[in-house]
This record gives sequence, structure tokens and C-alpha cells, in this order.
Amino acid sequence: MSGELKNVGILALEIYFPTTCLQQEALEVHDGASKGKYTIGLGQDCMGFCTEVEDVISMSLTAVTSLLEKYAIDPKQIGRLEVGSETVIDKSKSIKTFLMQIFEKCGNTDIEGVDSTNACYGGTAALFNCVNWVESSSWDGRYGLVVCTDSAVYAEGAARPTGGAAAIAMLVGPDAPIVFESKIRASHMAHVYDFYKPILDSEYPVVDGKLSQTCYLMALDSCYKSLCNKYEKLEGKQFSIDDAAYFVFHSPYNKLVQKSTARLMFNDFIRNASSIDESTKEKLAPFSSLTGDESYQSRDLEKASGQVAKPFYDGKVKPSTLVPKQVGNMYTASLYAAFASLLHNKRSSLAGKRVVLFSYGSGLTATMFSLRLNAGQHPFSLSNIATVMNVEEKLKSRHEFTPEKFIETMKI
Amino acid sequence: MSGELKNVGILALEIYFPTTCLQQEALEVHDGASKGKYTIGLGQDCMGFCTEVEDVISMSLTAVTSLLEKYAIDPKQIGRLEVGSETVIDKSKSIKTFLMQIFEKCGNTDIEGVDSTNACYGGTAALFNCVNWVESSSWDGRYGLVVCTDSAVYAEGAARPTGGAAAIAMLVGPDAPIVFESKIRASHMAHVYDFYKPILDSEYPVVDGKLSQTCYLMALDSCYKSLCNKYEKLEGKQFSIDDAAYFVFHSPYNKLVQKSTARLMFNDFIRNASSIDESTKEKLAPFSSLTGDESYQSRDLEKASGQVAKPFYDGKVKPSTLVPKQVGNMYTASLYAAFASLLHNKRSSLAGKRVVLFSYGSGLTATMFSLRLNAGQHPFSLSNIATVMNVEEKLKSRHEFTPEKFIETMKI
Repeated sequence: MSGELKNVGILALEIYFPTTCLQQEALEVHDGASKGKYTIGLGQDCMGFCTEVEDVISMSLTAVTSLLEKYAIDPKQIGRLEVGSETVIDKSKSIKTFLMQIFEKCGNTDIEGVDSTNACYGGTAALFNCVNWVESSSWDGRYGLVVCTDSAVYAEGAARPTGGAAAIAMLVGPDAPIVFESKIRASHMAHVYDFYKPILDSEYPVVDGKLSQTCYLMALDSCYKSLCNKYEKLEGKQFSIDDAAYFVFHSPYNKLVQKSTARLMFNDFIRNASSIDESTKEKLAPFSSLTGDESYQSRDLEKASGQVAKPFYDGKVKPSTLVPKQVGNMYTASLYAAFASLLHNKRSSLAGKRVVLFSYGSGLTATMFSLRLNAGQHPFSLSNIATVMNVEEKLKSRHEFTPEKFIETMKI
Repeated sequence: MSGELKNVGILALEIYFPTTCLQQEALEVHDGASKGKYTIGLGQDCMGFCTEVEDVISMSLTAVTSLLEKYAIDPKQIGRLEVGSETVIDKSKSIKTFLMQIFEKCGNTDIEGVDSTNACYGGTAALFNCVNWVESSSWDGRYGLVVCTDSAVYAEGAARPTGGAAAIAMLVGPDAPIVFESKIRASHMAHVYDFYKPILDSEYPVVDGKLSQTCYLMALDSCYKSLCNKYEKLEGKQFSIDDAAYFVFHSPYNKLVQKSTARLMFNDFIRNASSIDESTKEKLAPFSSLTGDESYQSRDLEKASGQVAKPFYDGKVKPSTLVPKQVGNMYTASLYAAFASLLHNKRSSLAGKRVVLFSYGSGLTATMFSLRLNAGQHPFSLSNIATVMNVEEKLKSRHEFTPEKFIETMKI
């Protein structure tokens, strides 16, 4: 059966984020931080957060219910449901079992899948698993449903402005407008302590910010190189940043996405790829002999590559940064909130385009993978997905908290 | 590519359990329990446990390293590695990333997969995911590796003798001796609090023993009915316990496996299946009008069905109970330790046989699924798998602790 299946991928998306938020500018003032420390230094505009009335369970229940309703999907049509999350409510019982409440009342308990876990990467693992299921001999013809849900909160201090919260639900099946190019994919996984949660009764992670950033960029390099190699073997020609219309990154904070963009360009420069023009070559030439380690530490390279990558960022990356800049780090939902932003901004113009995504989870697990988009058929069309998500309205209808009220809420 | 693949399944298994154990008889005496309370009441002979020198990470590192060595698998040949576990060492960093240490040093970091989590079911989810990957278009031709690793420890009291610990590694690929019959599979998933771990800084779960047992049996009924229906649609004939050579159950304690066996027989009786002879019909007739709920509570039914199911248990279930009775509840590894016991006991005589497995994880998620075995080709043959696992030698070479020394160890 699987041999006949075409275009397995994402049929529909729904996104939910809390209606409560905090302007990063206001937090800067409150924290006595220099102006622009959060808004330019981190590149973040606003931060969403859960108050005491919601959590990862309620957010994901909302996202799933809303997706099923808006696309008129009978809960009995779901054959697989899996969750990516790093917000641990219980050390044994999966978030998936909480979501079964929606399906049990319709008499559907025959639904495979549980939770996938590794930091911000769990949603990507769940998505790959779900696509594989549809392509496997155990597929029973029903839809798969993938949920990413997280609440990112940090102890008071440098990391606090990098919080966020959201849930995303994705419907998976054949004949999708968002199709996986399953051979154009590369992973980098390793044993590192860059960000982890060893204090089991605390919501707050332990973070080595500098190490985590370097790990992210090293994993990005490794995945990109490997993806290029695979593409070249497959297609018999070089891959470069010119070969995708958009790049979407896991976004702990926007500044790292900017750095990642520059890093991809630097990779193409080192690889002598056709995407790099003469003027760029000149500007990056002084850095051509840096070792890998040196290149992660060099502020001069960061500055020079950031400058030359600006048009690349503005054209191929910025359209995916809206929700991550407005809501913050949503952990497992972060990459897909970025992808949702791209769908929101570019809609049906994405038809025929390739989009490359980079998923990163500390610890660490990372994958770069490629999607090929087509217009799709109503209701599973790019334009309808954007309309149904209604990102702009959701962003507009939020309530701003003062920093004082936010801090009070965090203490509950 | 996936269309051409045949016989995707388990190529090899390795099992590790701690060399430290405690006789249940000795624990009965120590606890002042009535003689036979643990050995007959629970059906457990012995309990394995981790001392301070090992944990789920070390056990799984051992199982994986040992499997790779014994089957001469180059770590570079692994394209996917995933873990099922409910023992939370860190709330963000997956156990899979710890295992990457084995592969990084060989230069292989391009390995998909993370951890799958829901109580004792995570290993089954990981195994299904891995098989689906091999059957999907994203398979890259390399092996998959699934690891189940858990340490089950309980607070002093009634549940303490139901502990255990083990890690199992399974190599997944095409042309396997242990093949998934992917259409003969049914799940039952629901939102229940029968066993969970809400106290995040404690190793100990919260358990409603009676509820959990009923949930297990209800899930078993639901899966069995659904599997029978699917089989009947597929094959055009009725399914009964006669249609599989062996049944293997997730085993929190052996008594529940005995009850499950009786329950399957009762299901066949209610379904008027050909497996039920006249004498059995007579003995179960008084219970034919019980409601579902009543049937879970009836001690008379339990006794009567247990009696008639004794030959069924002895012939088709007992061969899989060795390691679970000797090591205890191994959570995610429990079902596969039972399956390993069957391989150990029946070896190449399993060729051509169907084996039905029942996986249960509280919370709850359950699946009944079917495997079809063939002799296989060396080194991936049923007889070699049994020889390499060497279960008898591993059981023999354990050291017995006294209950006092065990309790002291638990306090560390």
C-alpha cells in the first residue's frame, strides 16, 4: 500500500498561544537593562506566557479541538496521535493520554502514538514518526495528528526574557500541500549538557547559554554539510542556499536565527558554493582559514557574515520570524510556529517552493529537513491553512501584562 | 523503495539485567507476610534491582554495546536509535543522547530518533516507530536500534515486591526472523490515573493497584476484540486463541499474566469462538450474563476461568514468563523480557509460528500486536538470538542480597 502513497505530509495546522503577554521593552525598563538588550540583543518583541488558568494540557486540548472543528474532522478519523513536549507534568503519564479525552467520548480509543521527548526536538520526532506511519504497512488509512506543546519559563535573570508558550496541532496524511522530501534530511545528535532539567521538582532548566548557542551552530553546520552531501549524491549537483525559497529555524530567540542565517552563508562560502558572489567572497576571505572552533568564537566573523547575510535573512528567513518574535521560545512548538508564520505571510505564493527547516533540541538532537509545498486542495490548501490559523487576529487580541503582574504570575 | 521491503522486524535482541537480586521468599519472611503472598499471590520468584553503581543509562549502554559487539555491527551502520523508558533522569535531555556516546566516537552522529514515553508502553511505541521508519521513504538503508530501559522501585509497602530492572536492545531491519504482521494490531488508549508519577522529585510512583489491574484487563479486552474484528475483516474467518502459538504479556507481576490468559479465554467464550470446547462452555456458562464491570469484579469468574485456562496458560503463555518472574517488573522492558524468555525457551521451534503480544502502559496506552516468526539466517536467526542472549547463564550468575541489604540499598 505504502508504495502507492504520494505527497505524505502536513494537511493542516492550528496554533494556540496564550492571550497574555508582556512587551520586551517594558521588561527591559523593569529589569534596568540597557535599552535594546532584549529587543535588539535577543531580537525579541514580546513574550507570551501561561497564567494559572492554563498549561500545556489545556493549550494542546485547545489546539486539537480547534483543528478538528475548523477542518470538520470526525475524531474517529484519527488513527494516530502523538505529542512532542519537554514540559513534564507527570513523569509517567503522557500528555497524549490527556488528549484522549477528546476521542474517547466519540468512541475512538484505537489511536497509536505516545509522547516524544528530547528538549525542543520532540515535536519534530513526533512529526517524522507520524509521516513514517502513513508511509508504513501499518497505516490504516486514517489521519495522523501531531501536537507540540510547551511552556518555557526561566528563573529570574538573564534567561527570563527568553520564555514563551504555545501549542501547535498538525494533521498528517497523503495528498498534502506540505510534503516531506524525505531523502533531503540530515541529523546531528550528540551527548552534551548545554540545557537540561536535572532539578526534577523545578520548572526551570539549567542553561549554559554560551555553550548552548555554540552547540546549536555546530549542529546546524553538521546538518547542513550532511544535507548538502546527500543532496549532491541524489541530484548530482551542488546544493546551496539558493536551492530553497525559505529557511525556517528553531528559534530560542531571534538573534540566534540571525546568526544561523549568517552561518549558512559562511558554510556556502567555505564550500565555494555558487550562491556566494564576488563581493561576499571578498568580505569573508579574511575568515577562510579559521578553524571550526575559532569560527564559533570570532566576533569579527559574526559581524562580517551578519552583514553579508542581511539580504538573505530579509528575503528567505524573516517571513518565518513573526510568531517566535511575538510569543518567544515555545520549545517544541517553536520551529512550527516559525513555519506557521511563513504560511501566514506567504500563503499560496509558497506553491512549488522548497522550504528547509532546522530543528534543534538541547542535549542534543538536531535535524535539517526539506519540505516541498504545493497549493493543495480545499480545505487542505496553503491559503486556507493561513486563513484558518488567523495568526494576525490571535496576536492582536492578546492582553498585555505589566512586568510586575507577570512576575507575580510566575510566582504562583 | 518501501514497497519492495519484505519481513521488516526484529533481527536481534540483547538483554541486560542487574546481577543483584532478592528472593521473594526471603522478602516475604522479612516483611512478615503470609507464606506465598509474593511467590504465589503475585506469582513472582525473584526481584532484580540496581545498586548505586548502575542505573537506566548504564544498563542501556551495556545492552547496546553488547548487541553491537556480539553481532559485529559497526556503529556507523545504525541510522536510527530510539529509547522507551519511564525512568526520568532529566526532564529535558533524552536517554538517547546519552547512548550517542557509543556512536559519536565512531563519527556517526546522523542517527534519528529520541525517547518515547508513556509508562511501560514507551518501548512498544519506539519499536513501532522504528519498524515504520524502515518501511518509510525516509529509510536510508541502515539498521534501526530500539532500547527499553527501566528501573522499577516502589516505596515500602504492598507494591515494593513488584519492582525490577532491565535494559533490552533490539536491532530492526528487513529480512528479519521476527516479522510484524502490521495489519493484525489494535490499540486502546484512554485518560486514566491508575499509576502515575506526579511527585517529580521522587522515584516512586503513585499506584491505585486495584484500578490499574482493572484498567489493564479492560484494555486487554478492548484490544483483543478489536484485533479479532480486524483479523476477521482481513482474513474472512474468526480469530481465536487457537490462531496464535504463543501469547506474551506485559508483566507487572505474573499473577496478572495468569488473569489475562483467563480473560482471553473468557473473551473467546463470550464470542462463541471455536477455541472453546463443551466442557469449558459449561464451566463458564454461569458468567455469560455478567456485565463488563461485574466480570472484572467477580472472584467466582476469576477462579472458574483461571481453572479452565490452565492448559492454555501452561502451553502458550508460561514459556514467556521466565525472566519476568525472575527479575520482576522491568516497565518498558517487561514485555520484551517476556518475549526474550519465549525465544530462550523455544528457539528455532518458533519458526513458522505466530506470537501475539500485549503491551500496556498506565495512564493508559495499550496495544495488542502480532508477530510471525521464521528461522532466519545467521547471525539473525532465532537459535542464534537465543544463544547470544544466554538468559540462563545471566540468571545463574546473579548475587542474592538479603532483604536487609536490599532495603539499605534502596535508601541510597
